[in-house]
Parts: sequence; C-alpha cells; structure tokens
Amino acid sequence: MLYFENDYSEGAHEEILRNLMETNDEKLPGYGTDFFCERAKKKILKACECPDGEVYFLVGGTQTNATVIDGMLQQYEGVVAAGSGHISVHEAGAIEASGHKVLTLSQIDGKIHAEELRTYLETYFADENHEHMVFPGMVYLSHPTEYGTLYSKKELTDISGICREYNLPLYLDGARLGYGLASEENDLSLPEIASLCDVFYIGGTKVGALCGEAVVFTKNNAPRHFMTIVKQHGALLAKGRLLGVQFDTLFTDELYLKISKNAIETAEMLKKGLREKEYEFYIDSPTNQIFLVLSDREMEEWKKKVVFSFWEKIGENQTVIRLATSWATKKKDVEELLSVL
Amino acid sequence: MLYFENDYSEGAHEEILRNLMETNDEKLPGYGTDFFCERAKKKILKACECPDGEVYFLVGGTQTNATVIDGMLQQYEGVVAAGSGHISVHEAGAIEASGHKVLTLSQIDGKIHAEELRTYLETYFADENHEHMVFPGMVYLSHPTEYGTLYSKKELTDISGICREYNLPLYLDGARLGYGLASEENDLSLPEIASLCDVFYIGGTKVGALCGEAVVFTKNNAPRHFMTIVKQHGALLAKGRLLGVQFDTLFTDELYLKISKNAIETAEMLKKGLREKEYEFYIDSPTNQIFLVLSDREMEEWKKKVVFSFWEKIGENQTVIRLATSWATKKKDVEELLSVL
Amino acid sequence: MLYFENDYSEGAHEEILRNLMETNDEKLPGYGTDFFCERAKKKILKACECPDGEVYFLVGGTQTNATVIDGMLQQYEGVVAAGSGHISVHEAGAIEASGHKVLTLSQIDGKIHAEELRTYLETYFADENHEHMVFPGMVYLSHPTEYGTLYSKKELTDISGICREYNLPLYLDGARLGYGLASEENDLSLPEIASLCDVFYIGGTKVGALCGEAVVFTKNNAPRHFMTIVKQHGALLAKGRLLGVQFDTLFTDELYLKISKNAIETAEMLKKGLREKEYEFYIDSPTNQIFLVLSDREMEEWKKKVVFSFWEKIGENQTVIRLATSWATKKKDVEELLSVL
Amino acid sequence: MLYFENDYSEGAHEEILRNLMETNDEKLPGYGTDFFCERAKKKILKACECPDGEVYFLVGGTQTNATVIDGMLQQYEGVVAAGSGHISVHEAGAIEASGHKVLTLSQIDGKIHAEELRTYLETYFADENHEHMVFPGMVYLSHPTEYGTLYSKKELTDISGICREYNLPLYLDGARLGYGLASEENDLSLPEIASLCDVFYIGGTKVGALCGEAVVFTKNNAPRHFMTIVKQHGALLAKGRLLGVQFDTLFTDELYLKISKNAIETAEMLKKGLREKEYEFYIDSPTNQIFLVLSDREMEEWKKKVVFSFWEKIGENQTVIRLATSWATKKKDVEELLSVL
Repeated sequence: MLYFENDYSEGAHEEILRNLMETNDEKLPGYGTDFFCERAKKKILKACECPDGEVYFLVGGTQTNATVIDGMLQQYEGVVAAGSGHISVHEAGAIEASGHKVLTLSQIDGKIHAEELRTYLETYFADENHEHMVFPGMVYLSHPTEYGTLYSKKELTDISGICREYNLPLYLDGARLGYGLASEENDLSLPEIASLCDVFYIGGTKVGALCGEAVVFTKNNAPRHFMTIVKQHGALLAKGRLLGVQFDTLFTDELYLKISKNAIETAEMLKKGLREKEYEFYIDSPTNQIFLVLSDREMEEWKKKVVFSFWEKIGENQTVIRLATSWATKKKDVEELLSVL
Repeated sequence: MLYFENDYSEGAHEEILRNLMETNDEKLPGYGTDFFCERAKKKILKACECPDGEVYFLVGGTQTNATVIDGMLQQYEGVVAAGSGHISVHEAGAIEASGHKVLTLSQIDGKIHAEELRTYLETYFADENHEHMVFPGMVYLSHPTEYGTLYSKKELTDISGICREYNLPLYLDGARLGYGLASEENDLSLPEIASLCDVFYIGGTKVGALCGEAVVFTKNNAPRHFMTIVKQHGALLAKGRLLGVQFDTLFTDELYLKISKNAIETAEMLKKGLREKEYEFYIDSPTNQIFLVLSDREMEEWKKKVVFSFWEKIGENQTVIRLATSWATKKKDVEELLSVL
Repeated sequence: MLYFENDYSEGAHEEILRNLMETNDEKLPGYGTDFFCERAKKKILKACECPDGEVYFLVGGTQTNATVIDGMLQQYEGVVAAGSGHISVHEAGAIEASGHKVLTLSQIDGKIHAEELRTYLETYFADENHEHMVFPGMVYLSHPTEYGTLYSKKELTDISGICREYNLPLYLDGARLGYGLASEENDLSLPEIASLCDVFYIGGTKVGALCGEAVVFTKNNAPRHFMTIVKQHGALLAKGRLLGVQFDTLFTDELYLKISKNAIETAEMLKKGLREKEYEFYIDSPTNQIFLVLSDREMEEWKKKVVFSFWEKIGENQTVIRLATSWATKKKDVEELLSVL
Repeated sequence: MLYFENDYSEGAHEEILRNLMETNDEKLPGYGTDFFCERAKKKILKACECPDGEVYFLVGGTQTNATVIDGMLQQYEGVVAAGSGHISVHEAGAIEASGHKVLTLSQIDGKIHAEELRTYLETYFADENHEHMVFPGMVYLSHPTEYGTLYSKKELTDISGICREYNLPLYLDGARLGYGLASEENDLSLPEIASLCDVFYIGGTKVGALCGEAVVFTKNNAPRHFMTIVKQHGALLAKGRLLGVQFDTLFTDELYLKISKNAIETAEMLKKGLREKEYEFYIDSPTNQIFLVLSDREMEEWKKKVVFSFWEKIGENQTVIRLATSWATKKKDVEELLSVL
C-alpha cells in the first residue's frame, strides 16, 4: 500500500531521535525547566525576531488550542473562528468543554476575511442586546488552513489591524506552519507572523517531531500563571525534555524549514502528476495537502492501492478525499503513486 | 410613552397576585416539595394528557435551557439548534459554560427544517472522523421561535420522527408557548406537543407570571437526580411555593390560554392597523411579536412616542424593530399607538 | 403541627406583597434596569455607607455564591472556605461546576480563624510546588454561619487584614445577614461589614422576601461585564422589578432590621424555655437557628408535634436537630411549642 | 551534583529508544489505532489476566486522572479521595476544571481507610439533605501513594468490597505502580489489582517511558465514546505509536517489572545507609520514595551536593525532603551519596 493518509504517519526526523538518544542519560529537572527547553525557546524567539516573546511547549494541537484559548479568554468571552476551523469542528468540543463558545464566521477556502470580521464586530457592538451575547474575546485562524490554503501578508495584516482596533488578541494555529512557510505561494515570514499575531504556535507533531507544539506569546503577554493553566489542562509534560530536545533540534540549522520544503516539493510533484492525469481538484492548495474529487468507482479502485483520508461526501456519487505529503515523504513514493493510478 | 417593548414589562396577572397574597401565611416546605407545586404539576400533566410525565419548576428561560440541556447530554454531546435559536445567540454562552457546544443549523423564519436536520445527521454519521467531533445529543427548537413563527403539526411531526429514528431527545423551548397555542395559525395542541417532544417547557415569565418556567419531561424520562442538577445550576428556588402558586393559578380554568389569547388579539389588531398604514413587515409572525422595517428617520420619530425593541440593522438606513403585545396589553393602548403613528 | 423547620417557610412580608400589588401595572424595562431596582440600590448603598459600591440583585443563595465566585476568580484560582461552609457542602457542587476548587480550612463553630488562614497562605506560598496547586483566589465566609454563629468585629478585622495583605478579595455570604445584625451578641454594623469586605450579599429569601439576594461590591470592584456573567449563570431575572420592589421595601424605614429583630426575639424566648426544660444545646448560637441534641426516643416524640430540620446523627442514639425562627415567627407559636414539649 | 530529585529525571529505558528508532519509518495510522498500540494492549491485558478489559493510552498522569474521572462521573457526582491524594492537591484543580468536586477523606500515611469510607457513605446517604450535596460517584486511591506507601491486599479488598456494595467504581492511580509491584512489602499482584478495581492506570512516565500511562478498564466498562472524551480533554496523541511502542516494550519480557526492581533495590540500599547514619525518616515507605526530616542547617549542607525535592516545612527549623530512586538509578550513585553525607 502507498501511504498518503496524513502528515503524522511516520515517527520523528532521525536527527531528533539521535538527539533524544544522546541526551537520554542526562538528569534533568521536570516540567519544562530543563536546559534543552531553555535553549529551544531562545532559538525559536530568535527565529521569530521576537525578543520579548515567551515560549511554552505543549504536547498536541487540540490541547494547545484549548489551553491557549482558555488562558486568554474571560469567562464571558468566546473565540471568533472560521466555521471550518479545527476548533470549530474537529476538537470534540474541547473549547466548549472549558466553557467558551466558538463564534463562527463563514469561510472561503478555509479562511476568514477581514471584511466579514469587521462587519461581525460592528454589528455585535451596535446590537443593543450585546450584553446578553457572548463577547468576542480573541480571533483564531489556522495557517495553513484545514484546506491547506494560506493567508497572504495583505490578508493577515488586515485581520491583525482590525484585531488591534478592537483590542482582540489574534491567535494563529500553526499546526502545519512549516508547510506554510515553505510554500512557493507564501509571502509571510516567521518574524512577520510573530509581529502580526499576539500568540501562535509552531506545530511539531506534523512537521518532524514525535509530538509537541511550541506556543509563542509574541510580546510578553502570556496569561498570568500560564504554567498552572497548562497543568490544569493536563498539558504539562513531566519530562519536558522530550519537547525541549525536539524543538532544539528542529530550530538548529533551520531543520524545521528544510524538512518542510520536502513536503512542498513532493506535493508539487504529486499535484503536477495528478493534473496531467486530469483529476479534479476540490480546492487549489499551495501546501502539503491535496484535495481531490473522486467518483465512488474511482475511490474503490484507489482503496486497493493507496491509503488516503476521507474528507467529505459531495453529491450522490462523489467524495472529496485528501492526500498528504510530509517531511518524510520520498520522491519515489510519489512516483510510484502516479504510476499506479 | 406607549410601551410595546416586550412581553415581560408588567408584573403578574392579578389572579396570581391574589393567590400569592392568600396563601402567604401558610407554612410550607421548601424547594418545590409543597402542596401548591404538587397540585400545579398535576394540573399541567392533565393539560398535557401526559400521565407519565414529570414536571419541574425553574425560575427563568436561560436557566431552564442550560439546566435541561446539561442534564440531558453526555459530556461529549452537543445540542442541535437553529443559528437564530435563543441558546445560540442570546444566552451569554450559558450552554457552553456547562461544557456543551451548540451545533447550529441554518434557520428559515427562525425554524429548523426536517430535511436539513436529516442531512446533518446523515453527514455526521457518515463522516469517518466523526469521533473527533461533538456528537449530536439532542435537538432544540423554540416554539414560537425568536421571530414569533410557529412549527406546524406536520413540521414538528417530521422533526420528531427523525429524532426518534436517531434516538435524540427533542426539546422544545416554550418561553412563549401560550402565545403559540393561542395563535390562529396554530394547529398543535398541548397534548400533541407533549407527545412529539421528550421535554419542553411552558413559559410563565412572558405569559402572566412574575417568573417561572414549567419543565415537562413527557415520559418519565427526567435525568437521574435532576433535582440535584437543578441545585447545581443555582436554579432551585428555596421558596418553591412562588412557582407552585403561580402555575397552579395559570392552569386553573385555563387561565394560561385565556390570557395568551389577549396577546394574540391585540397583536392582530396592531398588525391590521400597521398594514393599513403600509408599514413594511420584516417577517410574517402569527403570534405576539411584530417585526417592522423602519427607516432611520421613522425610527427617530417613533422613539419620541413608543418604547420598542431594537432587533437588527439592515442596510445603511434601515433597522428592524420589534413590537410585542402580551397577556397585559390593553386594546386602547393599541388604538392609541395606531392613532399617533 | 408546629412549624420551626426553617426561615423560608412563609411567603413574604406583607409590605412587600402590597408594594408588588401596587406597582404591578407599571410598565418597566427588564433585567434590573427599572426604577425600583435603581432606588433599592441607592438605599442599600446608603445603609452600607458605601457610596462607591455597586449592587446587583440575584435570585437565590447558591446561585449568588456560584456567580460571584466564578466572576471574581481566575481559572487557576479557588476559594478558601470553612469545611462547613455552605459552598463546601450544600450547594451540590455549584462552585466546582464552574471550574473552581473550594479550598477548605477547618472550622470552629462554623467559623474560619485568622491564624489558620495565615498559616495556610504562608504554607501555600512557601511550597516550592505551589504552581502545581490551585491558587487561593478569594476568601469566603458566611455570617451568620451555617451554625448560626457570628464573627466578632475583631475576628472579621483580622481576617480582612490578612486578605488585604495577600491581595485576596474577602466575600461574605449574608444569606441570614439580618439575623446577624439583629443579634444581641453582634458588634458589627452594616457599614463596618461593607468596609471590611470586598463583596458580600444581603439575603432576602430568608429575611422576608419571596426570593432575592442583593450583592454589594463595596468599592467599585464588580468584575467587568458582571451582568453578562450573571446572565451566563442563568441568574438574570427578566422581571428584575420583582427583586427591585422587594429590596426597595426592605430598605425603607429599616424594615429589614425590624423584621430581623423578630426572629432574634422569638429565638431568645425559645432558647430560654428550652434551657429551663434542660434540653442539651449542640452549639451556642446567638441568632435565629437553634441546635439541639435529642435522643432518638425524644425525636420520635417531637416528630408528632413539631416540624424541625434533621442536622446530623451523632453517636448511636442521638441526633442533632435544628429549630429556626424567622421574621414571621409569632410569639404564640413559641409559647405553644414550649407548652407541648 | 548527585541527582535524587524524582523518578522522571532521565529519558527512557534504552530498549524503548531502540524500538522507537527501529519502527520509526513505518507508516502507521494515527490516534492509537496502530499495530503497536494493539499489541501493547493485548500484552497488558494478558499481564492483568483481564481478558474483558479495555486499554487506552494517555500521555501524562494529571491528564489521565482528569479524563478518566470526568469520563466516569455524572455531572452531579464527585470523586472520593484522600486529602493527600494527587488529585486533591497537586493537579492544579484539573478535576474541578471539568466540573467535579474532590470529596476528601482523611489520610493515614497517604491512604484512605475502609472504615472511614464506610462511615462517610453511610452518613452521606442517611443525611436527609444529601440531594443538596455532591453525590459520591467513584473512589480514587493512589498505589503507591504520594508518600510511597502501599495498600495491602486486605486493605484494597475491604475498600473494593465497600465500593461494590455502594455501586461505586474504584479507580487506582498507578503512576508508580511498577514500584509498588516490585516492593518487598507488596502482597498484591497485577491481576489482583485488576480484579479489585474497576479502572486503574499503569504509569509509564515514572517507570522508564518518555511519557505515557496505560488506562485499564477491567471489565469492558469504559465510558461510551471514551475516545471522544479523551480527545475533548486534549489527551489524544496524534502519533499514538509513541505510546504503543513504549508500552509494547515495557510489557515484553516483563521489562516493566525488571526495571521497577532496580528502583526498589537502590532505594533499600539508600535507606539502609541513611538509617546507619541515623537520619530521621518522616515516614516508613516501602517503595522508591524516601522522606527525611532535615534540620535547616543540614538541608543547606545537602543542597551543595544533592538535588532532592522539598516536601513540606514542619515546625520552625525542620523540613521534610524527598529522595527518589528510579528505574535508572545506579548503585554507584547511591554509594556516592552515602559517602558524601
């Protein structure tokens, strides 16, 4: 079988495993207070050109979203997000479980749009009954989005401007941030993202790590006692070294970007081949996720050879499926896939 | 000023006050275990033709929704509702505060539609990732809706059928149920509602009581230890008699229906007059709420003479406003309003 | 039967009912924005000599505690209270349901003690692992306590001093505050309580009202958007007038204190008679609650004539029971009780 | 410096790292559905002699406790635990954050006792007001306890019997279960624990793994849709293989027990040496944690040479400290420590 189901199907980049091995016997303090966490934090802040930032390491994406959002919001506030946002759909209600509403805007290609955000906020504050409604307390967006699309510098700047006007923190979910940064379509650097957002996370799980997400509060603005909030959410890893060593590795010699590029190159190669074979693309994604529309018959054929993700049914006989490349995808896997289709 | 702002601007029906006065000195046990609560429950179940039902009295609408929904759902479940539903918009996140997502369907005239509900459920269960999503755990609808509209017997029967097929409890928010039952357009009796729903509440606050909502679990299906759940939600009134006496009064000699009729008659009179004056109706509501589109200039004129509710801005120079009649509205108030416009 | 079960077994003081009747037809805005609420707030702040205070009216005690505590705390904070405190035992977990731990101190006669509070706080902050523990975020005490006892001015001043030293808001649950103020043993005035506490509530439900508690934030320190927090807790009454009129009445001509005195006088009379009959007192309470130790045989005898409250079993054959007088207790009821024992 | 601070200061057992390395390139499905998780589950159930059991892998201890407890309880229920239990003190309120009260019993050497549990339950259900109180919904105990002590077979059997009598699930927190099983004082086998408890977890983080805890529901009694509950708690690891491979390794050739034995042997050696040097033991712990009472002067001396844990201050000039050995402690480290004291 050819495996294109997702970008977390292999273990970790070999460099990470090597470093875990080499540092394994060192006796280190727990809960993220060790030397490797400290060094990784410094490297990340440097890469973000964000000297006043603060970094926290958490284990997974849903956990990170729930913890950051709960940490930033007052109890009467909710988080504004696209209806297709990960927190809106695929986190099993983790945001609501900590008491907060996800206030959804419509999405176009997985993105919220500055104009609709402004209209929503104007309407909300103009509503004489708005004190009976959930207050918008922050704005969430994913970049790349769940559809693999990217915000342009212009789009993110516009959204950021509105957030600042309304004094709403802007939070960027970067579960696949590396693949965004490496995309040819991308015009946003890591320091620009850090400058436009109040908090964001750099995804490790989907970009070469066994687990781990690095949350960056960009301007000394972490919630008070955030470590205790992390603990309360069950998100404080005893052996914080596991996260520290991994991010220390990923942010040494730009490994994070280098391995992200591999996912983009293999995705581009795959898209080119699929286009030549005249497959129908559901959406034009510039990162590592590829969404195809297959007829049911085609899908059954595919299932014999390829492991892919179900995305959604559209119409009677058609299904959207997802293929994903990753830091670990080999060019020969792509070639093989293209040859068997 | 002429007061048409809402249906809770007066105190209580005089019969209720008289009974509170007359029973005031009786020494009664607390927390809803008194004689008047017992008698009121029996009368309500009789009116609902629902001998196996259970009745609980709570104080207000948002509280009732939050308590019932939290009581019925498992922690991994959410409640399906119209995007315009009271729980979706105007309860300050009370549902999410108890950990549950409101799963919104689109609305037409404030109503959800059987077909969309079915599609939603089919799509949800067909989604291979649905275990990462909030489970639909019950269906909520308001009747009359927030726009004053009503479900027909056919519509409610269809929705109820789907709920039973998927084993989802159907919950009807009857904050203004009396006005629905009294509407000329209505074809649903109280026993029919009780038979089609698993739980619903009969609103007192907006229909003649000082406060109070009567929750009816229609088939001996109240959540275990529901009294403790009510207490935990801060919704257990020490002097339960205040609710018992009021509902005992409302369900004696059909007072609830009689006073509801007054709201409908005065609303019809008002609508007729407004139609003759060629005002633009935002929606055709058959109950006690009237939604008009006013130009900003008209609205400023109105504000000098009438107290009404802001509903929402539409377009540059127009606003939707709401007029409400109630059990207490006098025909001469309507006449006066029509004469000054 | 003679009824001494609790202090909420009658309806409301007749003056309250009369005012509800007289104002019943006035058309008033909802949610506590009406004239009566405004006037009652002014009267309360005047009685508290607390010009910078803010007053909110809620419906019941558990609801008030849950809403105020959730409103004041950050998510990583808990509330410090006596193990016997109402929030610790008899609120069905309402505090925990909003996410906060009740951090219990031991109690002596229902009271926490300054010295133990100080030790607790010193130990907590000296603990090198305290960031893994719930932060103390406020201090709760009830006055009178659940055992009817009172804090002396000295005791409350000491506790208040520690709270200020540690920057912890002090919250006083005054469900039966009137009975404390009216007690002969009391040396704390309402303005002194307002000055020593950051927030407290004046109980209406148990002191003459049908329902209602008046929360006083003493120094313009209500949580931001507290009204929305109240709404989210299901505690915002649509017909706020019901609370406004009642507290307006209670704080006119010192009615609140006058009717509280009745409870104290009848309780003193009852205690004197019981002492003469050599009943064993479980605790020496200076307010309206009387705790007796009865043998099982005595208790069975009593049950034929008196309605009282079960408190707790102690030892094999003995039970603590509670008798309560109230604003409504008549001297002849006490005489009758003493004559039948 | 000599490092005896805790049992999670090294990375992972070398066998685990080797297996992670060897399986790193295999493409596996996510979220714990991979082959290694499946195999590890089977090995665990076999070791527990628990064919009808179900196993879930979570990442850390606090997370596991919060998820299991929230999954097992109804919203009106709390969890009964020792006042010194990890969930009572050191989880930053994670249990309360999901809405549940920790109902504390007193502890002796970190343990709850059957007799007190029975008295608590009898008193609770005999209390006529118990519906206003949090229901006991399950019993939690840690084994070894936070003080390193162990329940005997007799003690656990008695507690289990009471739980079954009252229909309360019994949950055992085995963060350090290996060290309990390996202790010379232990008379409880893994199958016996599985038979006496309804759910327990086998701790990996503190016994040789980088992270990970294996939850065992012993009788096909996992909460419905537990995977979704895990996801909602942010506890579902995308690369479930990280947990699967680790537990597969730990439960191959009894590695878990073998490495646990090392902690016990080094602890015994250390205790013997400390006893000879006449140090004062705070508690007699038969597992890998050693609690000493040091004078402040001694403690300052120690700090120059040893890394240990602060436990608590007792009296003016004395502090309880903790030394911990682990699966990774070397005999020569113990010798060195004893030689420098």
